Amino acid sequence: MFEAQDGRRELEKKIEKYFERKQYPHLQDLLLPLEAADIASLFNELNEERLPLIFRLLPKELAAEVFVELDSGQQELLIRRFSNAELKEVLDELYLDDTVDIVEEMPANVVKRILMHSAPEIRKNINEILKYPEDSTGSIMTTEFVDLNAAMTVEAALKRIRRTGPDKETINICYVIDGGRHLIGLLSIRTLLLAEENDVIDDIMERNFISVQTLDDRESTAQTLSKYDFLALPVVDTENRLVGIVTVDDAMDVIEEETTEDIELMAAMLPSDKPYLKTGVFETWKARAPWLMILMLSATFTSIILTHFENSLAACAILTSFIPMLSGTGGNSGTQASTAVIRALSLGEIRFPDLPRALWKESRVAVCCGLCLAAVNFVKMMIFDRWLMHNPAVTPLVAMVVCCTLVGTVLCAKLAGCALPLLAKKLGLDPAVMASPFISTIVDSISLLIYFQLASMLLGI
Amino acid sequence: MFEAQDGRRELEKKIEKYFERKQYPHLQDLLLPLEAADIASLFNELNEERLPLIFRLLPKELAAEVFVELDSGQQELLIRRFSNAELKEVLDELYLDDTVDIVEEMPANVVKRILMHSAPEIRKNINEILKYPEDSTGSIMTTEFVDLNAAMTVEAALKRIRRTGPDKETINICYVIDGGRHLIGLLSIRTLLLAEENDVIDDIMERNFISVQTLDDRESTAQTLSKYDFLALPVVDTENRLVGIVTVDDAMDVIEEETTEDIELMAAMLPSDKPYLKTGVFETWKARAPWLMILMLSATFTSIILTHFENSLAACAILTSFIPMLSGTGGNSGTQASTAVIRALSLGEIRFPDLPRALWKESRVAVCCGLCLAAVNFVKMMIFDRWLMHNPAVTPLVAMVVCCTLVGTVLCAKLAGCALPLLAKKLGLDPAVMASPFISTIVDSISLLIYFQLASMLLGI
Repeated sequence: MFEAQDGRRELEKKIEKYFERKQYPHLQDLLLPLEAADIASLFNELNEERLPLIFRLLPKELAAEVFVELDSGQQELLIRRFSNAELKEVLDELYLDDTVDIVEEMPANVVKRILMHSAPEIRKNINEILKYPEDSTGSIMTTEFVDLNAAMTVEAALKRIRRTGPDKETINICYVIDGGRHLIGLLSIRTLLLAEENDVIDDIMERNFISVQTLDDRESTAQTLSKYDFLALPVVDTENRLVGIVTVDDAMDVIEEETTEDIELMAAMLPSDKPYLKTGVFETWKARAPWLMILMLSATFTSIILTHFENSLAACAILTSFIPMLSGTGGNSGTQASTAVIRALSLGEIRFPDLPRALWKESRVAVCCGLCLAAVNFVKMMIFDRWLMHNPAVTPLVAMVVCCTLVGTVLCAKLAGCALPLLAKKLGLDPAVMASPFISTIVDSISLLIYFQLASMLLGI
Repeated sequence: MFEAQDGRRELEKKIEKYFERKQYPHLQDLLLPLEAADIASLFNELNEERLPLIFRLLPKELAAEVFVELDSGQQELLIRRFSNAELKEVLDELYLDDTVDIVEEMPANVVKRILMHSAPEIRKNINEILKYPEDSTGSIMTTEFVDLNAAMTVEAALKRIRRTGPDKETINICYVIDGGRHLIGLLSIRTLLLAEENDVIDDIMERNFISVQTLDDRESTAQTLSKYDFLALPVVDTENRLVGIVTVDDAMDVIEEETTEDIELMAAMLPSDKPYLKTGVFETWKARAPWLMILMLSATFTSIILTHFENSLAACAILTSFIPMLSGTGGNSGTQASTAVIRALSLGEIRFPDLPRALWKESRVAVCCGLCLAAVNFVKMMIFDRWLMHNPAVTPLVAMVVCCTLVGTVLCAKLAGCALPLLAKKLGLDPAVMASPFISTIVDSISLLIYFQLASMLLGI
């Protein structure tokens, strides 16, 4: 980790200097002590010509680790520049799930070259994993795990781990299977180490374990792993045969991606999977314009309502000046409720049958919030608008209309904000769509209708 | 994991039945095969009288695991009901960091009882960790790790792990320290297992490692761990002495909490650390009302602007009906930009020096989005409002005013949405505060000023 930005900038300058002077051994000394993720982030700033050169300075294990961390544009560039021998060397060092991630991002001709230079066994496994749908657990699993036999002794198991371990993604948890490759138990390396050499696996393995299926949603698998604090989860097929494992680092990446997707949806953007500064203007536009367009057109309702009540507004012009405050407060109240419910849904804290409880809670919160806001607003309108700004149009009756509308708006907003995400979930939609912008648009119209209804009742316009 | 909601409800019914018939052994058989987190979630629904009874049915290791997963109200209840011997038994089974988490939530008299029944060594460590500030790395670390000596052979190291391992939170990574307890290297259990028995630790340990300090922000520590895909991170004091480790499960919890906090702040709520349905009405009100109040009062600016231009609006009443659409679109555009930047900041994808690049990007996106929206809106106003709704007041010139304002509003909104979170970060504030509600309020005023300026220029009012 770069302790400070200064450290990083200094490093970048040194790299520049060594490049210019062609002092490659110095360059190598500079890179070797760094973590792969940091080297990759330095490489991201390099120009295309220098990347293959500097990459070749890395020893092959580190090179593979750095390769995984590069962005897909740079991975493609490197693969195109690699000789066949170099490509094979990098591929041999990669873990299977990383290779699959890379293959998924590459254009067809590069994929072909990758598959051609992978060992036949790996090639078969890559093709296997590529078959799973993008959001499934199968697509994020790796098939490189340690499997043991229930009849083995601890000594034999340790021997097997020593022999096969170097190629496995993790040895921290081992999986016990029967003759038909059905998963029958788990064993942590800790249990194994703390057991006696002559103990039999069958006696010490954990038989109560949780497994997921290849077609389960990858987000729910990641949440399961996080909920139970596991380091890995076994993945089985429909016949309970062990086909792979999902490790905690991949689960963390999935949770991060899915959270970003939720947050983007909640802010009315189509999800993008690239970092902010790496997304082009056109791509960003494509992700943002559609929702803006839909929401803009849906504001037609409010404009119809306002045109309809044009005469009331003409009769009491001061009413206009409180419309933005009302719609803003409605939007904010709705956003608070919908955000709380959407987050609770994605953390599994709330389910559809909880709807009545949630509505009851929100309505009480809404009344409390609404009454507070109304009271403060009444005082503010009397003191600030009427007295300090000398606006005689702001009568106590007008203030009453505004304040009563405020309470009604907050109530509707909170109820809509609470109910819509739960309904969306029930209907199989992504609840995050029912967030702030969508709810504001609905609440705007309701709030205006209440406003004009009250105005015609209380002010007689 | 409960495969389906049905499974859970059936389980709840069975528990109810066994309780009524006092068939406790059946109850035990039902619970034993479940994961601790699932048992805790079942216990959350039980009434106060039954909880201590059913808890005593669990064997002590599982009991401790379940205890950690209960919510703090139930933990308190149990501690109050435990005999001294029972309390000691549970405390002995807990990992240190879990004990600290529990102690932090309990009232003073319960804390005193916990400390009284902990072993002296544990008591010292609890007090040590409690000293660290709430958001620091020290507060989430555990002091139960495996430390090795560089001069040891692999055989000796494995012997030490077998001896001390049962009490450690993880043995997957071991830490090599010198005589002064300074951290000099790391060793994964994998390297250790794959090495020869006579190898010396000094020769096989990893010397290039990343460590964090006790006072580092806990979120940045969790992000570091996630970025490098580590299972644990060593925590050192200011003199580089190893004092603890942070494990991946705790890091995942921190990231989840901090993300929830970010999302809540972005929706103008004060963060709460309880699940949605467990938070009381008063607490929820306290978290939501202050921001609603501030935002409501800040809408005074828009109301002043509208009052100021009252005569222009009277001269051209149709202008009023497009105000909600303009302010809505402004708010949504700003939200998109600010959300993207806030998320990029919390994932470390963007830094303050990137501000000019980000502004340049956002301004191009804004122009593209603004022009598209303006074009669609112009056509919509001509066809729908003027032609279909027979509203002669919607002249092409009025449409021009609305559409030009739209472009200006989107531009201002995107620039403010991009710049404000970065500026907040630079000033040491939480960027998430500069999200949708805050930006909408600013953009509303700017948008109205542009609107009336253009109206007076183009329509001569």
